[in-house]
Amino acid sequence: MNPTPASAQNFRALDVIRKKRDGGELSRHEIESLVNAYTRGDIPDYQVSAWLMAVVLRGLTRTETAALTDAMLHSGEVIDLSSLPAKKVDKHSTGGVGDKTSLVLAPLAAAAGVTVPMISGRGLGHTGGTLDKLEAIPGFNVNLPVAQFRHVLETCGCAMIGQTAEIAPADRKLYALRDVTGTVESPHLICASIMSKKLAEGIDGLVLDVKTGSGAFMKSDKDAAFLAELMVETGERMGKQMVALITDMDQPLGYMIGNALEVVEVVEVLRGEGPEDLRQLCFELAGWMLHLGGVSDTVTEGRRQSEKLISSGKALDRFRHMVELQGGDLRAVDDPKKLPHAHSTMTLSSPKNGYLASLQCEQVGTACVILGGGRERKEDSVDPAVGIVLHKKVGDAVSAGEPMATIHYNAEARAARARQLLEESYQISDSPAPEKRPLIHRVIGKSGEKN
Amino acid sequence: MNPTPASAQNFRALDVIRKKRDGGELSRHEIESLVNAYTRGDIPDYQVSAWLMAVVLRGLTRTETAALTDAMLHSGEVIDLSSLPAKKVDKHSTGGVGDKTSLVLAPLAAAAGVTVPMISGRGLGHTGGTLDKLEAIPGFNVNLPVAQFRHVLETCGCAMIGQTAEIAPADRKLYALRDVTGTVESPHLICASIMSKKLAEGIDGLVLDVKTGSGAFMKSDKDAAFLAELMVETGERMGKQMVALITDMDQPLGYMIGNALEVVEVVEVLRGEGPEDLRQLCFELAGWMLHLGGVSDTVTEGRRQSEKLISSGKALDRFRHMVELQGGDLRAVDDPKKLPHAHSTMTLSSPKNGYLASLQCEQVGTACVILGGGRERKEDSVDPAVGIVLHKKVGDAVSAGEPMATIHYNAEARAARARQLLEESYQISDSPAPEKRPLIHRVIGKSGEKN
Repeated sequence: MNPTPASAQNFRALDVIRKKRDGGELSRHEIESLVNAYTRGDIPDYQVSAWLMAVVLRGLTRTETAALTDAMLHSGEVIDLSSLPAKKVDKHSTGGVGDKTSLVLAPLAAAAGVTVPMISGRGLGHTGGTLDKLEAIPGFNVNLPVAQFRHVLETCGCAMIGQTAEIAPADRKLYALRDVTGTVESPHLICASIMSKKLAEGIDGLVLDVKTGSGAFMKSDKDAAFLAELMVETGERMGKQMVALITDMDQPLGYMIGNALEVVEVVEVLRGEGPEDLRQLCFELAGWMLHLGGVSDTVTEGRRQSEKLISSGKALDRFRHMVELQGGDLRAVDDPKKLPHAHSTMTLSSPKNGYLASLQCEQVGTACVILGGGRERKEDSVDPAVGIVLHKKVGDAVSAGEPMATIHYNAEARAARARQLLEESYQISDSPAPEKRPLIHRVIGKSGEKN
Repeated sequence: MNPTPASAQNFRALDVIRKKRDGGELSRHEIESLVNAYTRGDIPDYQVSAWLMAVVLRGLTRTETAALTDAMLHSGEVIDLSSLPAKKVDKHSTGGVGDKTSLVLAPLAAAAGVTVPMISGRGLGHTGGTLDKLEAIPGFNVNLPVAQFRHVLETCGCAMIGQTAEIAPADRKLYALRDVTGTVESPHLICASIMSKKLAEGIDGLVLDVKTGSGAFMKSDKDAAFLAELMVETGERMGKQMVALITDMDQPLGYMIGNALEVVEVVEVLRGEGPEDLRQLCFELAGWMLHLGGVSDTVTEGRRQSEKLISSGKALDRFRHMVELQGGDLRAVDDPKKLPHAHSTMTLSSPKNGYLASLQCEQVGTACVILGGGRERKEDSVDPAVGIVLHKKVGDAVSAGEPMATIHYNAEARAARARQLLEESYQISDSPAPEKRPLIHRVIGKSGEKN
């Protein structure tokens, strides 16, 4: 037992643990008391971890989930952006491989007149993180204090930073405990963690990109839809405009995986080029951001507006403006050669003629982590230069000897391990796949709206 | 998070937590590693409490339960009594109100030639504890070191002490954590806790008295039978002679509740007197102890032998001998007036004519705790003198104004609270109860034996 003394407070915590253990529904007061006492340090970790495990195995009702989110949100600062005239809309993804849409969407929606106060995370496990990608741009500062964040937002309509110490401290403490007690995998706890941080941004609306497939945390559509519904309902209960898109993560998004490489692809899309799947997903998500932000009557109109803002170069201008305001080197945006580069590359070729039947997406993400492009532990630092460039995506025809992927690496041993994992992740069949997985699986929430 | 650093050890603990969370079966190695690392202090409380909650909600298989018991048993000293020629048999009760059978059984079985190395606990919650009852005898020392315990055993065939620091330290640490994390209520964890301590006594056989009814921890026969089967199987897997009796605890056993008062009733039984339910249960349990201990071919014969050892006074002689060897004042055994006495008594009378239909047993136990005869918290001290003497048991006819119970107290305010609780625990009906609950509900294990 650690030295935290038993107190009257502890006795109440025990009642809350027992109630959840036995499948009971906790009151808002019970949840608030637990979260606040834990954040203050009045309840020991060992009681909260027992409670978290009971939550993982017993679940939470929608009302409990909303109460937990609210308690975590109000454990810290809620940024007040009400003085900014435009609607504030953010997008959040549950994490994937090659998912660099945030870097396109923030300036794109801002160019349309929506304010995008985006507070993002770092990569963990096989998935990449927005902050790591931004930091591949030399000089880009993601650690702005709230006052400066507000200044960037006022000046260019979007700003992208990391979580500050003031935002949802209960989540930071709870997440650290969940991470070491096997209590991460609960849709209710995931929902409360995501939503408490996002709602602290002072937003009016939120577009959720819930990933599903072999590269997502939620491997099945069913699990993804459950989480999506939970988050949409939780946000709506708090008066926010909410929508969730269940989107495909059965193979990486776009062709580039790795921090600097993904910035290259982001700039391509902002220039009106880039891979079709990434472009389509960006337009779809942007369409919803513009619609929730009140600058387009329908999502279709929002998509069209977004396409125009890309082709006119206005979205790219906005991106350059944000990079400049946050201290980034614009030369790296304008010329990909100025971004960090790996010392060596090696090419993976197809062993035979056929069709690329599948690409085990989590393994591709893990291969990038092995190269040094992601984190095995939170404390690890990230190599911005390394990564993987795919040359083929699922459904493509391949010939024997034809390049499938290029590995960008800085360490031979890591490259060898990544190569092996990557080779194992490819499955080549003799005939074309009967059907292709759609990019957008489902839209949840806002079902009455014209699409 | 408390300061215990994350280590390679922790990573394995996390795997074990996740596996149990997901309903997997843990290997003996995984369970041993967890228990040993926790006992050494290499795994923090917060990981173990998450694991305990997963165990409460997912359960353990029989194999896992045996492995956990074994790991907890071998976390400390296992007393080696192989040099003593007789078979070593103990009895363990899951706890009840007015259950003083241990004080009768240890000398009774010893008088028959069975060695009884009894390590007992203190009262907690509404149930009494053997150690508290023994300490009502002035001078009786329950804190003998193992060498002296062995000496008393060798000299008179039985000894009754409290748990030493050397026995099952893993259980002590785990129990303290379970107590504050809502993870007490698991038959698998209860089984491992009880069996690891009992098997550390160096016994060949164990008779379990698993209580059921309103005064027991297991309120239903089903739950009691589940726990009984688990403990019997766990003991048998470890090569022990095992039997479990599911016995009634829907009303207190005997007429006296409270430490010194129970000693009075124990001496009555050892003198061949005392209440019929208590006598019958003692003979039944003793019959099994003698049978498992190899001194009687059948349980029936063991019962008969026990009755003779009572009527001949040999069991009482053995009790006096043990009290003497453990420093107790024999005058208090020979003359109940020499035992601690409460300053005052008050009588509870029947409000009407009728029949005693039920006696809420947990409330009677709690009333005794309120008087000071038990513990609300582990740290509380116990008043040996206070308690309750019942004058009526379930099924008895009562007349208006007839005494139902006498409260022995040392503090007015406590007596008033206890009286109210006691009054609420009585239910008087106009007609006799249709059927009486049997004393022995079921016998589990040893089913092939002649009874």
